[in-house]
Amino acid sequence: MKSLIFFAFVTPFTLFAADMLPSWKDGAVKESIVSFIQKAQDKSSDAFIEVEDRVAVFDNDGTLWSEQPLYFQLFFAIERLQQMAEKDPSLKKEQPYKAVLEGDMKTFQSFGEKGIAQVVFKTHAGMPNEEFEQEVAEWIAKAKHPKTGRRFIDMTYQPMKELIQALHAAEFKCYIVSGGGASFMRPWVEEAYGIPRNRVIGSRVEIEYQVQDGQPVLMRKAKLEFVDDKEGKPVGIYQVIGRRPVFAAGNSDGDFQMLEYTTAGKGARMGVLVHHTDAEREWAYDRESPIGHLVRGLDEAEERGWILIDMKEHWKTIYGEE
Amino acid sequence: MKSLIFFAFVTPFTLFAADMLPSWKDGAVKESIVSFIQKAQDKSSDAFIEVEDRVAVFDNDGTLWSEQPLYFQLFFAIERLQQMAEKDPSLKKEQPYKAVLEGDMKTFQSFGEKGIAQVVFKTHAGMPNEEFEQEVAEWIAKAKHPKTGRRFIDMTYQPMKELIQALHAAEFKCYIVSGGGASFMRPWVEEAYGIPRNRVIGSRVEIEYQVQDGQPVLMRKAKLEFVDDKEGKPVGIYQVIGRRPVFAAGNSDGDFQMLEYTTAGKGARMGVLVHHTDAEREWAYDRESPIGHLVRGLDEAEERGWILIDMKEHWKTIYGEE
Repeated sequence: MKSLIFFAFVTPFTLFAADMLPSWKDGAVKESIVSFIQKAQDKSSDAFIEVEDRVAVFDNDGTLWSEQPLYFQLFFAIERLQQMAEKDPSLKKEQPYKAVLEGDMKTFQSFGEKGIAQVVFKTHAGMPNEEFEQEVAEWIAKAKHPKTGRRFIDMTYQPMKELIQALHAAEFKCYIVSGGGASFMRPWVEEAYGIPRNRVIGSRVEIEYQVQDGQPVLMRKAKLEFVDDKEGKPVGIYQVIGRRPVFAAGNSDGDFQMLEYTTAGKGARMGVLVHHTDAEREWAYDRESPIGHLVRGLDEAEERGWILIDMKEHWKTIYGEE
Repeated sequence: MKSLIFFAFVTPFTLFAADMLPSWKDGAVKESIVSFIQKAQDKSSDAFIEVEDRVAVFDNDGTLWSEQPLYFQLFFAIERLQQMAEKDPSLKKEQPYKAVLEGDMKTFQSFGEKGIAQVVFKTHAGMPNEEFEQEVAEWIAKAKHPKTGRRFIDMTYQPMKELIQALHAAEFKCYIVSGGGASFMRPWVEEAYGIPRNRVIGSRVEIEYQVQDGQPVLMRKAKLEFVDDKEGKPVGIYQVIGRRPVFAAGNSDGDFQMLEYTTAGKGARMGVLVHHTDAEREWAYDRESPIGHLVRGLDEAEERGWILIDMKEHWKTIYGEE
């Protein structure tokens, strides 16, 4: 008993570390993260962080769950379009919906960004927000990934969920700051990550307040009101949090400005980039990939002091329970 | 001792009530509010509210602090314009600034809403957001109201601060949802109300992410990006909270939709309107006043079950320590 107390006294960080991030392999990356969290709580440390400043921000696609071969929100859009086409067969004759419904991606791509916007608005707008979130909740409960056969919600990264838990235990407030739709994420982030729905910052369509038959409704309009990507991420953080985070995690150049803004502040800061290096257990991509495009982050991580998380090297498991 | 326990057992609500809202006079209004808060925590009650749904929203001007004879943010704008004119005397010759600097309100009003926008943008935009908030913090620490001689921050309503405290004690999350500027309020709401700066929803100018000499900056632009008033309030709540509140407090028709949206939900709900009836201790105004204009709220409060708080009748003190 006595020796145990002594041991706990001299090596508290190492001791806690083993519990804090069990899915992370021991090494410099894990030690840096654990040390950051421990020192943030240690008033005698130079890296102590006041509780109200303990704000951590996480990108979602490719940082907290997978994003290949398409952002998962696009699988939702396609499945929803299929449902809509069953009720309204005219969609099967109308482009660009016809191409999507026939799985003719070449024709679909010929419509460019406008085609994507049309499919997204068709499936994400024109209904009350509550109804949309209900659709998402029903989809996420059962929808599965075509390649892995896992439910999308079970393709969330176990090591990152442990990191969020460790930050929560250290009184950090964790926010999701994603290019995905805020209303697409809110229905399931609590279940998936233990992050409450009010800590979600995402892209938004315009919302119009309407009163229908005496009932107030937040109607989703076919217009992008805010794109939470690149320079938009620090702006979204300003809008919703109003405080500069001290910790930021991303995986693509869409997260560059969020990490830049976060780590440029005074005092202890940490920026991490999840590097997709594991073609066997997940996917391997970076510079050449249109999804999760990562060039500037790779080139500048070292000089900026950002940590590159090598999925293959640093994580014992990707999704847990493999 | 035994009788005290018995007493506490049979009348817990009344017993707590005395402590919870000491600046509120006893009566039906106080009882309704106390009962709402108590039942929200009582699992055996029909009016129980799950902790994650305990979201309360408060307008600021006229609901948590005074707003006469001008919104206090306009006093800030005028004083800041005066400071700017000392450094840049050309402003003294240029309209509409000249009129404001000379206190010539008649001429200023002749420029209409465009004139107000010009003064607001001149004083609220064109600088990094951090710098702007610093200006606000310095101003609020000492600026005083021309009529009362009190600091503006000491013209916050003691009874409403007790209400916020009581809601916090009952695990409610309290947000400010104001037509005023989010960045104007964030620097001082924690000190004034015990509400953290990340729980402020307000109007916003456009923010542009810039990197200046390697340092990221959130630059304030001379463009209104979001007006958090009327139909905008439920939209701002959607953007930042993503959850329908169960309690809403306002004082003008600018708060109508926020109360409507809040109280139309299922389960226990409460909407309250602060009615300015006290010309002696504060101000008396409603239907005819351009500031704090209240017509529809007065006409429909009863049928909608909203509580009218009569400042003169229901509050023992306005600002405390009178």
